[in-house]
Order: sequence, then structure tokens, then C-alpha cells
Amino acid sequence: MGNGLLGGIEAGGTKFVLAVGSSPTDILSRHSIPTRKPEDTLAEAAEWFASQGRLEALGIASFGPVDLDRDSPSWGSITNTPKPGWSGCALASFFGKRFGVPIGFDTDVNGAALAEYHFGAGRDASSLAYVTVGTGIGGGLVVDGKALHGAAHPEMGHIFPRRHTKDLEFAGTCPHHGDCLEGLACGPAILARWGSSLSELPLDHVAHRVIADYLAQLCHTIFATTSAEVIVLGGGVMGTPGLLEKVNARARQLDKEYLPGGPKHLLAAPLLGQDSGAVGALLLAKMTSTD
Amino acid sequence: MGNGLLGGIEAGGTKFVLAVGSSPTDILSRHSIPTRKPEDTLAEAAEWFASQGRLEALGIASFGPVDLDRDSPSWGSITNTPKPGWSGCALASFFGKRFGVPIGFDTDVNGAALAEYHFGAGRDASSLAYVTVGTGIGGGLVVDGKALHGAAHPEMGHIFPRRHTKDLEFAGTCPHHGDCLEGLACGPAILARWGSSLSELPLDHVAHRVIADYLAQLCHTIFATTSAEVIVLGGGVMGTPGLLEKVNARARQLDKEYLPGGPKHLLAAPLLGQDSGAVGALLLAKMTSTD
Repeated sequence: MGNGLLGGIEAGGTKFVLAVGSSPTDILSRHSIPTRKPEDTLAEAAEWFASQGRLEALGIASFGPVDLDRDSPSWGSITNTPKPGWSGCALASFFGKRFGVPIGFDTDVNGAALAEYHFGAGRDASSLAYVTVGTGIGGGLVVDGKALHGAAHPEMGHIFPRRHTKDLEFAGTCPHHGDCLEGLACGPAILARWGSSLSELPLDHVAHRVIADYLAQLCHTIFATTSAEVIVLGGGVMGTPGLLEKVNARARQLDKEYLPGGPKHLLAAPLLGQDSGAVGALLLAKMTSTD
Repeated sequence: MGNGLLGGIEAGGTKFVLAVGSSPTDILSRHSIPTRKPEDTLAEAAEWFASQGRLEALGIASFGPVDLDRDSPSWGSITNTPKPGWSGCALASFFGKRFGVPIGFDTDVNGAALAEYHFGAGRDASSLAYVTVGTGIGGGLVVDGKALHGAAHPEMGHIFPRRHTKDLEFAGTCPHHGDCLEGLACGPAILARWGSSLSELPLDHVAHRVIADYLAQLCHTIFATTSAEVIVLGGGVMGTPGLLEKVNARARQLDKEYLPGGPKHLLAAPLLGQDSGAVGALLLAKMTSTD
């Protein structure tokens, strides 16, 4: 490490959060810009970083799907996103050329998972999944300090939960799968069938039970397939009062105390709160600068 | 490594497969014994190993659930199995005391996953899941050469697939969850509702479509949550002619070419055939002797 700053970008579908820090958890300055056309958004982000001082490395935690294959010519790019104009956007190479520094790159949820694993809810765990429930549903997994890649990266929002008996009609909003988990339980899916966000619906509205059941199925599935110790649930929908407790109760009901390591399986809110994403991006910068 | 032999035990619910080798893939001798009461089974296994020459290390790949926590007093034991008499059976400590050698210990499916990852269908992959479909359904996952543990170990058979429209009545055979995947698609569940094994049912029987659909949901779920490159499908039920192809076709139908890394996601038969378990156990021996 030299004396430069770590830079981090949490690249989201609605906004880009930019941060610089002397370490992943020592954020010196942050700035948020709306996600517009790629060229405008990237130019504005670059301008802000240029005004912050000399960068040592830059980490990018991006909405996906993304190309994480270091040997691929499109490494560090967004791939086939439904978001207009953003397919093929070469985030890593743009900033790499602009600043001439090492670029760390991963999915937004892998970044947040790394942040919570190292500095948040997973500090005492050997593995941690981070799930965001917002405009979409995504999940990342960290095992022994490393984000899981495999063939590419997990897309946990696209499993198929069992339909809740009080929610059998809705077709789902996922353009690929219809009623996969994301198509049933993301923010826009909630809005589409109940006309408002979950937090605006009365607490006795069936939507709370239905959404808790779907998210509990996801958590049970993550525990059963990966044996993750901690699942951190973040994102706008998870801000609904009481939802985390309902998901937890329902997940335990589904499991029937079967899964080995039972008490080690925990559901938690992000301990870093809104900062998981930015801390994750700075951590990606730090990890690449010390590779 | 000294000059002794590697010993391996694939501890299954119906039989124990014992093997000695000069390396995990160079099996010099093997022997199979029926699984009876723990004390008789373990004594018989020990007697066979004693007749084979000096052991350097012993690996045990056991049916589960098992305790994999090296800091736990019950490390290397079977925990709360429904199999009468086997709960609490201290496999690792029995053989450790008997032979005074290092003991490697993991689940049967993690052992088979390690074997296929290093020497079989996953030789070119960064991650591999091994799923067995037999008297039960279990799955293990290897990432970067290491079996995934986390809170304990995966129990992939206990996810909840969507019920197939031609299979809505059957209650399922899982004593914990009823109609979880294992309760719907393991050998005894097939026998319970159709009166014979899958391979004995005519190829136009609906059971083939139903079981392929459930197993395809598992594969899609593993790909979505872990991004595994290869899933190896083994076990008695997978011996049904045409089943692997049906599972593969249905999994691709479910995914709709969405998951990133698509062509990297492969379903495969065990390349080591019946040997995955024994090779896995010998590999556990080797890994512990070179720790």
C-alpha cells in the first residue's frame, strides 16, 4: 500500500454511491449520483474521484449480472442486464484507464457480503450470505473470507419458492421467470399486486405473511445448500418494521430444527446499515491493491 | 507421508465400503460389509484394516448428519440420525484410538464431491456439487479444492421444491419435513407411491417426468445459490436410464438461459462411477496426513 486513497463505487440501478477512505471502514468522503446513461454516470463519477486526491486502488461493487472471469476480455463489465443501455458497460476498464490504478470488481451483493463478513454481522462466522430485497433480489456468499464465484456468481433471487396459499393468482414480475422469488417478493412485485410498498400496508395485511414466507424459503434454501452461518438481509423492503422477525420465525418453522449446526444459523440485519455497499467497494479496492 | 497405506471408509446406511490404497486413486484392496449395529460394524471394519498392513492415515466419509466442528468434543461423530442406534456413534475417535493415526472426516457426499472435483467430472472446474439420490438425498459442495462446511454441512435434500401438477396428493416420506425434496424424490418415496423403483417403471410413466422435475429444481437452486460449475448426480435412483438427460433438459427449461456463466453450468454422472465414495474417503486420509 502506498499513501493514496482507496476509492469505492457501489454501482446500483438507481444510484451510484461513491466513497474514498484511508481504509474500508474509515470513509473520508462519500457522494451519491443518480444512475443515468452509462457515459454520463461514469464521467460524473470519475470527475468526483479526480477531485478527491490521488487514488491507490478502486473497488467496484456493481449490480449484475457481471463478468467476473479474470481471463475474459469482458471482465469487469455488466453483461445481459434488462436495464436499457447498460448491457456490456465496461465499468472496470473505464476506471482502470482513467486512473491507472488496480481495479477490484465484484457484484454489489458480494461486496456487501465481504463487508459484513469482515466488519459486520459475520465477524465471528466462517461463512456469510448477504441478501438484498429491493428493486430486485440478489444474494452473495463469502466463505473463509472470499466471495464465491464458481461459474460466475450466485443469482439467489431466481429460485422458485412454493406459492403461498394466499397468493396463488399473481403472475410475478420477473421478465425471465415470472413467479421466481424476485418476481414474487421484490419491491415492484409487492407494489404491482397490493398497490403500495410493504411498509405502507397495515401490519395485519396478508402481504406481510406472504412476503415473510417467500423470504424464509430463500433463507432455508441457502442454509440447506450452503450451510452458511449467517444470512444478512438488507435492501429497501427489509426496512419494513417486523419483517426480519417474521422471516426468522417462518424459517425456523420450515426447518423443524433439522439442519445440523442449527443454532449457528442466524438471520441478521446489516450491522453496517446503509454502509455495507460502500465499505464492500472499498474492501474490493484494498483486496486488489494487496493481491 | 511415510510408507504406510491410506485407509478409507465410505460409511453408508446400508453398507460400509472399506479401501486401502497407496494414493486416493490407486486402490489396492477393497471390502464391503453390511451396516449392522455400530459396535459390530466398527469392529468388523477395524479387523479388516488390521489385516491390510500398516496404515498411515484413515479417512471416513460418513452418512449424516455428522459433527464436523474440530473444536467440538463430538467431532467425528454421527449426530441426530433417524437410523436406530447410530446417533452419537463416535466413528473418528474409535478408529483414531484403534490405529493411532490421523483421521480425516467429512460427510459421504463431501467426500464424493472432493473425489469428483480432484479426479473426476470436476477436474477443470473451480467448484463442484455432488448430489446422491438413493435411500436419501444429500449434497456436498467443493469450492477451490475444499469441502464447504460453514455452520455444519449442507443438507441439500431438504429444500422444498414446487409440487409437480401430476403429483399433488402424496404426503412425502421425510420424517422431518414430509414433502421436502428427499420426501418426494428419494428411492423409498418413489417406491411408496408407485410401488416400484423408477428404473422398473415404463419410460412413459409420469414418475419419470415428476422425479426429473424435482431434481431439476434442486440443480437450478444449487446453480442459483452457489454458482457451482458442475453438479455430479450419483446414487441408485440416478442409475435410471435417461434420467440424467431429463433432469438436464428440465433444468435448462427452468433457467430460461438466465443464470450468468450459463454454459459453464454442467450436470454430469460420476466420472469415478461407484468409486467416488472410496476415492473420497482415501482423499480425506491423504488430506489429513499432509495437513
